[in-house]
Amino acid sequence: MPRLDLSASAASITQALCDIPSVSGDERRIADEIMAQLADLPHLHVHRDGDTIVARTDRGLPQRVVIAGHIDTVPINDNVPTRLLDQDGEPYLWGRGTVDMKGGVAVQLKLAAELSDPRVDLTWMWYDHEEVDASLNGLNRLSRTRPDLFAGDFAILGEPSNGRVEGGCNGNLRVIARTHGVRAHSARAWVGENAIHAASPILVRLAEYRPREIPVEGLRYREGLNAVRISGGIAGNVIPDLCEVEINYRFAPDKSADAAEAHVRDVLAGFEVEVVDRAEGARPGLDAPLAQEFLAAVGGEPRPKYGWTDVARFSALGIPAVNYGPGDPSLAHHDQERVPLAQIEDVERGLRTWLTR
Amino acid sequence: MPRLDLSASAASITQALCDIPSVSGDERRIADEIMAQLADLPHLHVHRDGDTIVARTDRGLPQRVVIAGHIDTVPINDNVPTRLLDQDGEPYLWGRGTVDMKGGVAVQLKLAAELSDPRVDLTWMWYDHEEVDASLNGLNRLSRTRPDLFAGDFAILGEPSNGRVEGGCNGNLRVIARTHGVRAHSARAWVGENAIHAASPILVRLAEYRPREIPVEGLRYREGLNAVRISGGIAGNVIPDLCEVEINYRFAPDKSADAAEAHVRDVLAGFEVEVVDRAEGARPGLDAPLAQEFLAAVGGEPRPKYGWTDVARFSALGIPAVNYGPGDPSLAHHDQERVPLAQIEDVERGLRTWLTR
Repeated sequence: MPRLDLSASAASITQALCDIPSVSGDERRIADEIMAQLADLPHLHVHRDGDTIVARTDRGLPQRVVIAGHIDTVPINDNVPTRLLDQDGEPYLWGRGTVDMKGGVAVQLKLAAELSDPRVDLTWMWYDHEEVDASLNGLNRLSRTRPDLFAGDFAILGEPSNGRVEGGCNGNLRVIARTHGVRAHSARAWVGENAIHAASPILVRLAEYRPREIPVEGLRYREGLNAVRISGGIAGNVIPDLCEVEINYRFAPDKSADAAEAHVRDVLAGFEVEVVDRAEGARPGLDAPLAQEFLAAVGGEPRPKYGWTDVARFSALGIPAVNYGPGDPSLAHHDQERVPLAQIEDVERGLRTWLTR
Repeated sequence: MPRLDLSASAASITQALCDIPSVSGDERRIADEIMAQLADLPHLHVHRDGDTIVARTDRGLPQRVVIAGHIDTVPINDNVPTRLLDQDGEPYLWGRGTVDMKGGVAVQLKLAAELSDPRVDLTWMWYDHEEVDASLNGLNRLSRTRPDLFAGDFAILGEPSNGRVEGGCNGNLRVIARTHGVRAHSARAWVGENAIHAASPILVRLAEYRPREIPVEGLRYREGLNAVRISGGIAGNVIPDLCEVEINYRFAPDKSADAAEAHVRDVLAGFEVEVVDRAEGARPGLDAPLAQEFLAAVGGEPRPKYGWTDVARFSALGIPAVNYGPGDPSLAHHDQERVPLAQIEDVERGLRTWLTR
């Protein structure tokens, strides 16, 4: 396995990063490799917190931009080591992590090493445990232990966005709606009460729900309200006394998680509802002057980010934040995860153009 | 642990039988004990097939009655060994198997040993694996390997019926109704199709279904059509591509399993339906002369049997069959399973009265 070489092309760095096993919880080696490449660069101050690495320029410039990416992946599924392949004549890098998000991290690492004299001060962050429970998230941990490192006027998260700027993100709410009944032998069903039958209005309301498309600061966010899991029943001859429907609401960043929860409780009025996960969305914040400069430099029309990303953590700190990285987000976690090399190059060019003095 | 002693009271025999571990698949020891008690009795010819035991009188009488009971139980749950307790001043035997159906088997064993000169020839059957998949059922196995042993004019199954005669049984059909969708990240739900939402009409039809009560040969059988299990979804952020609803139809013995299946397919028209289990019901057959004599001897109004029982196996062979045993069927498999001693005595008295010449 090749050692990391930050003077190589971003595509090569992507491949090297993907070929280092780094499923969530197993990021030590990749973090060690990154540390080894950056620790001695004179223009960077490097901090490490667990397997999260922060590298800062400190040139006393009036503005500071945070650029971040996670270094873990979801579990591999026979899709490592990576390989180059062609699709419709276009070269791709195929394999776990190519989209989510070693391509973005590769560009960031390359530019972190190279840009010793950027036009704004830079805080690079590479963090662990993004693909698992939020309580483990390295960025989350760092925001508690070293909030000072989050100082900045604008943030860019390298999550896959097809090399386009995707502003903010939808919020994310998960609830469980529960119905109760009375258990009985199904041969004497009239003695019991069927909790699965009692859940039918929940499914009807979800099936009939028409999700909205909501403009926020010029971007149109599509919402979604969906049953993502259902379970009930304990045996083929027992009237079930419990049915649980897990429901996921992706809500536009015009509303708080509180407002989103109130909306879901309204849709499910009359049913027991337990909130199991809540994450605020992030407004796109594209009216910030640095955001406008960034958009002008990288070109293209900004779009909304539908999936929840860690941009919301910056947004919560009052820092406008966008997603900007190579790769099609719909191929993230996919067994056929793959990134066009051209997108890696585009993102590298976009960031370099903007960041070079 | 006391050895089996068939000269003891039926209640004592019940207790001894319950205290021999005999969860389905583990019936060898209880079968050995039964064999040891019966093998040397001169009025019985005893056969053994696995852990199923058949004991026949062969006195050349014009009529033969089959009396059967299963010797296994569902798993124990801190409710063995059995103990005597009082409820509202009435003595009960409490513990796994007391209702389903060691009480009935105890009465049968006691009478098998005692009645050396019955008024009809008798075929006693005690069989294994009733509480598990039908393919393992000892009575089912014996009906294939030794159909000759099933010759008879009337059959009595000692399943719990509160010491009353319960005629025939409802049939039992289980199906799985499936809906399909297209998996997608729930942040972009519009790319997918939600299989759980697609299942809402299934639950609505089941919730709105009004089960019928159908008279068959003078007994009124209550039906039931119920979702007994539901499952769908794979993760909190994925639009589910599959939802499965397991549905149990308990149908009156006026109709065949074919007709029952057609009815369920009609209720679920438009949905994929897979049959996973089908068992014919049994008509009560109480107009048979031996059944009439039996009813007159034991007294009380006959009732329909709602739960499916092995009487259907006799019915399928053209032998009228009833359920008659101590214990409340709604306490079968219950952690507080318990039988009033008076019911054990009543059933013993009823059978002895009828069978004694």
